[in-house]
Order: sequence, then structure tokens, then C-alpha cells
Amino acid sequence: MGETATAVAFTEQDYAARMHRAARDAAAAGLSGLLVTPGPDLEWLCGYRPPAITERLTLLVVTQDSEPRLLVPALERPDATAAPGAGALRITEWRDGQDPYAAATGLLRPNGRYGVGDATWAMHLLGLQETLPLATFRSLSVALPMLRAVKDAHEVERLAAAGAAADAAYRDILSVRFAGRRERDVAADLARLLREHGHSQVDFTVVGSGPNGANPHHEAGDRLIVDGDMVVLDFGGLKDGYGSDTSRTVHVGEPTVEERKVHDIVRVAQQAAVDAVRPGVACQDIDRVARSVIEDAGYGEYFVQRTGHGIGVTTHEPPYLVAGEKQPLVPGMCFSVEPGICLPGRFGVRIEDIVTCTEHGGRRLNDTPHELAVVDGAAAAGR
Amino acid sequence: MGETATAVAFTEQDYAARMHRAARDAAAAGLSGLLVTPGPDLEWLCGYRPPAITERLTLLVVTQDSEPRLLVPALERPDATAAPGAGALRITEWRDGQDPYAAATGLLRPNGRYGVGDATWAMHLLGLQETLPLATFRSLSVALPMLRAVKDAHEVERLAAAGAAADAAYRDILSVRFAGRRERDVAADLARLLREHGHSQVDFTVVGSGPNGANPHHEAGDRLIVDGDMVVLDFGGLKDGYGSDTSRTVHVGEPTVEERKVHDIVRVAQQAAVDAVRPGVACQDIDRVARSVIEDAGYGEYFVQRTGHGIGVTTHEPPYLVAGEKQPLVPGMCFSVEPGICLPGRFGVRIEDIVTCTEHGGRRLNDTPHELAVVDGAAAAGR
Repeated sequence: MGETATAVAFTEQDYAARMHRAARDAAAAGLSGLLVTPGPDLEWLCGYRPPAITERLTLLVVTQDSEPRLLVPALERPDATAAPGAGALRITEWRDGQDPYAAATGLLRPNGRYGVGDATWAMHLLGLQETLPLATFRSLSVALPMLRAVKDAHEVERLAAAGAAADAAYRDILSVRFAGRRERDVAADLARLLREHGHSQVDFTVVGSGPNGANPHHEAGDRLIVDGDMVVLDFGGLKDGYGSDTSRTVHVGEPTVEERKVHDIVRVAQQAAVDAVRPGVACQDIDRVARSVIEDAGYGEYFVQRTGHGIGVTTHEPPYLVAGEKQPLVPGMCFSVEPGICLPGRFGVRIEDIVTCTEHGGRRLNDTPHELAVVDGAAAAGR
Repeated sequence: MGETATAVAFTEQDYAARMHRAARDAAAAGLSGLLVTPGPDLEWLCGYRPPAITERLTLLVVTQDSEPRLLVPALERPDATAAPGAGALRITEWRDGQDPYAAATGLLRPNGRYGVGDATWAMHLLGLQETLPLATFRSLSVALPMLRAVKDAHEVERLAAAGAAADAAYRDILSVRFAGRRERDVAADLARLLREHGHSQVDFTVVGSGPNGANPHHEAGDRLIVDGDMVVLDFGGLKDGYGSDTSRTVHVGEPTVEERKVHDIVRVAQQAAVDAVRPGVACQDIDRVARSVIEDAGYGEYFVQRTGHGIGVTTHEPPYLVAGEKQPLVPGMCFSVEPGICLPGRFGVRIEDIVTCTEHGGRRLNDTPHELAVVDGAAAAGR
């Protein structure tokens, strides 16, 4: 589903290797093991995605002293058994009416120290804390933030393919009409183009025109785009299970001197941040580099976001390029670099590429031009 | 979006009343307050649905000694301010680079006792536990399971409208061809019909033919449906923000005596369970009634599910009709009643209606016949 002929399937051995590495990293981080519930971590570790994420406990336990074990609701056992990594798991079950947390204790050490998936439901964590009062739990993103952050070559390939597809969508969107249409219509074009270029899932298609571009999490609304608008485009999703996320800012008709200047500051900041990527540099330093350029230009207070976030089987994950994040970059890490300037009530600019850290520095997985693209403009009036 | 002209919008006063009631119920349950992160609880309490659920903390604090407060990431403040219940909230923010849990402590009592939304991310709970080591936390579904369970008349109206739409989809599906088509094609028909009849979101369209019907959480696969198959249909989603969820089992061509018998047992069990609904009866007793019928018929070991679950702004929520659930039914509660028999490797039968508890007993929100419907059959061969 959504797979193209070019994406090689991950095998049971791939999943076994990921779980083996995760168990080793957990031990190195002083943990007894990892507790993972449905979501991207579970899918990445063992290839299992249950039919739905519900209040019924499904729990993967990864430790160094035992094979990986998966506890599932009895009625989801057939689904679990069909997962591509199931052969590397010992699957046990609990039934409706039984206490799932009591069932889980059989897989855990009473005084263990466990890393728990970030998005695990609080009800499950509270259930485990009550059943195992001597055990301690830490958030996976704190205890083992880099669990999925370092991608192997095969994963980078999938991210590059997703990036290339997003780039193709961007090139196509430049020739649609902007002026006189609503943001949500351009957003629908972007979603259609992402799918046409192989995305199986569209996560976001931000079209922030004029003042809406100054709200960095604006999606796309009813506003009519008009001649003279800056328009922030920020879009991405999943292709063959791996994410794309790119932003470009375009202008309808000729930009003003100030609009060109602000766009240029963001462009230079983004370039400087990408140039700073190399193994060993702390995530916060990449943020610092981008922020310095924008601060030096006098727009510091209008750069209200962090500079970037990791990407992989989700479009939003560690590592985060943000003040305070001391994690050094490691070859194979993949993340967005997306500084921006938001001028409230006026307009916004954001430029974003996915970048992978290599031994030799940053390599962009997007390659469309960074210059301010002019769309429709005078031509639009005549159409 | 997805709203029809018939659904009256909930107002700021509606949300204020829900939060007021929630604060009162929390206090009655011995809690200092409720902590709610993005998801159905948040949307139900204050009408706010952030653009995406991410690792950035958004936290609603509802207590009796203060107006409701919402902590949001700075860049999502414009979204929060636009929520229909925003006027009833005091909104505060934290910025990237700040510690969101430190920001949250300003809204909480150091030794408070809080109910936490079930699906709140574990990373947020752990962050709060670390910042407030003297505070205690309980799962909302344990501390205040009935937070959203008792629906007001307006909500029941929306559930009834969603049920009627699902019924219309079921009536339509009876005239499509089954034999010779793949389960996923019939599932696609069901999804299309749900949307045609006003659903804005389709959550599941199970088509379990032959042996697949014996896996209660089978969705729909590549299996070709053939003459002689039992086919379990279980489908639902959201219409105007409220859920539908119904199951009927149909047969392709003439059923055997055994198939009719098993279907009849489930039909009688479902009817008995619905008949048992009235205020004050414990949830587990409804399950007990359905289970007794099936056990007495000798199929007890093949009824592997609980009998039902609540429904509202989600298609799956408390109250649960399951052994051990002593919660008495209260007028306004709405839930599925869906006993089934799964004969591994052979076939399954499930019949499901949404039922609301009234002062006078159960009232079905689905009204299509329960008798085993025969589809295509001999006619199919000639088409």
C-alpha cells in the first residue's frame, strides 16, 4: 500500500537488528529496557501497526536479557502475527476482562528502569506505575532521544525519494494560479500533487498568504490570495513510509524592496545553518547560527520558532534544533532546517529543506531554488 | 467543515457549562482538577482542536477554584484563541526553548491530585511528575470515567443523526454485488456511502468474509468474497463531530442451517442485552446478559470480545460493557451493544447497534433489521 517498485521492503532481519540495537542502546543509557506502544516507534522497531490505537494495551518490551516480547489484546493477535517483524518477537496476549497491566508485569522486572515511548497513553503509564510501584520510568525522548534519529542508508534513500517527490510538487505548484483563489484551494492542489508524486499520506499543506503567513502554524483558510501577497508554502507527508517536509515562500507579482530584504535574510540564515551542519556540532548551535543571522539583521524577535526537527517514519521527531539541545549531530541524522520571520499582521517568510548529516557535512534532500519565486502577477490579471 | 445545516453549533456557553460540570465532578471525585491535552476530551471541553497533536505541550487545567486555563505553545496561540470555547478560558503560552512543564506548574498546586486524560502523552505526564514530585495523578478513565459518558439531548441528537446515516449506508450496501469482489472493494463502497450520507470522517469499514469474519478486528483485505460466505460488516465514523458504529452480518446466497442457528443466537443475545438496558444496571450486567445467551447455546468460548463500548465525539470510549465494570447506567449514556460469535477458520457473526439509556430503558439509534440478510446469491451468477 503506497509502496512503489523502487522501495525495497524491510525484512524480519532489519527489524531484529533495530530491536537488538535499541536493547543495546537502552542498556548503555542505564535502562532495563524499552516499553513501546502502538505508533511510529513500534512500527519502526517491529513493523507492527495495529488496526487502530485504542485504550487496549499493546506493549512491546525490548531488553538485552531476553528476546523482544509483544503483549497484545487477544483479538488483535492475528494482526500482530502478520507483522513483518513478528518472527523476531515472542507474542503473548491478554483478554478483555483481564488486567492488562498485571499481564505486562510478567514481562517486566519489578524494580526495573524503563524507557517509555513518548506518545504512550498516560493511562497505560499510570497502570504500569501502579502495578510496579518500585519500577521507574523515563520518557524515551529524554532517556534515548536518538532511538530512531540515526538513519541507515536505506532509510536516507527513502527520505531522499520523499524529498524529491515534494520538490516535484513544488515545481508544479509554481505554475498554478494563486491570485483570486482561496488558500485552501492552493492547499488542495499541493495535496493532490504530493499524492501524484507518490505520497501515500499528506500530513500538512500550509498556504499562508499575506498576514496569515505570519502565523507559523496557520494551515490554509478561506482568505483570497491577492496580487502583492507573500505566500508561505509548507507541505509534506509520507512516501513509502518516510517523510517529506519542505517550505518555500513565493510572491504574487513583484515584491517590494522590504519583502525582498526579509526573504533574503531568511535565505542567508537557512544557508548558514545548513553550512554549519557536520558531525559533532550540537543541535542548538545550528539553531544559534540561523538565529544570529536574523538577529543581526534586526528581526530577532520575529523568529518565533525553533530552527528544525528530525524526520523519519514521522514528519516531526527528535532531534530538535532548538536552544538547549546539546545533542551532537551524528552521521545519518535527518532533520529540517527552517528559519523564518513572522511580521504579525503583515507577512511571513520561511525556507525549509530536509538535511542529512554526513561525515563531510550537511546534504540537502531538497533541491528546488531558494530565491523568491514570483507567481502569476501581471499575467494573472490577463488569465 | 463537515457540518450540515441541521446540526446546531455548540456555543461558548455550552463549553463553559461542560467545564463547570467537569470541575464539579472532579472535586466530587476527590481531585484538585483535570489536566487535558489535545484530543477528544479537549475538544469536548472547550472546542479547541490544535492543528496537530505534537510533542509540544498544550494543557487545559480545569479546577473548581479558578476559571479554566489553557497553556499553549506560543505559535499556536492564534489557533487556540479562535476556538469556539476560547472566551471561557484564560490562555497562557510558553515558547520554544522554555520548559513547558515549568510553565505548567504556575497553573497547578504542588501537592495537587489531578486527573489526566487517558491519551495524554507519557512524556508530558513524566514531565509533570518530575516538576511536581508531590502531586499525584490518576487516569481520567479511572478517576472520572463518566466525564463525557452522559450525553445531553443535543449530543444524543447528533449521535442519532450519525446512526441514521450509517443505517442508510447499510441499506445501500445490500444492493451492491458481494460475490466475486474483494473485501476491500466492498469496504470502499461502505466508506463512500458513509460520506455520501454525511459523514465527515470514516473510522473503520470492516468487511470480514468467511474465515476473516472470525477475526473480530480484521479490517478488509484482498480475499475474494464467494457464494456461501458469511460477511461481517462493521462500520462507522463521525458525522457533525459525533460517532456512528454499527454491525450487521449478511450472507452471500442461501445460508446453511448452522449459519442460521449461529446468527440467531447472536441476534437473541443482542436483543436480550438491549432489553436489559435501564438506569442503575451495571455495565457488566449487560455484558453478562449477552454472554449468558451465547454460553447457554454452547458457544461461550467463541464470544471473545466485550459486549460494547461508549460512543460520542469518538467512536470508542467509556463506558465499557465488560466483566468487572460496575458502573451503573445513567440516562444519557450512549454505547454499542455488539455481541458476536467467532468460529476460527470458519466464519463470524456480529450484530451491533448504538443504544442510549433513557429513563425508560434502552433506545436504539440504529433501526435496520437484525435478520440475516441474503445478498447476491443465485442472482450474482447471472450478473
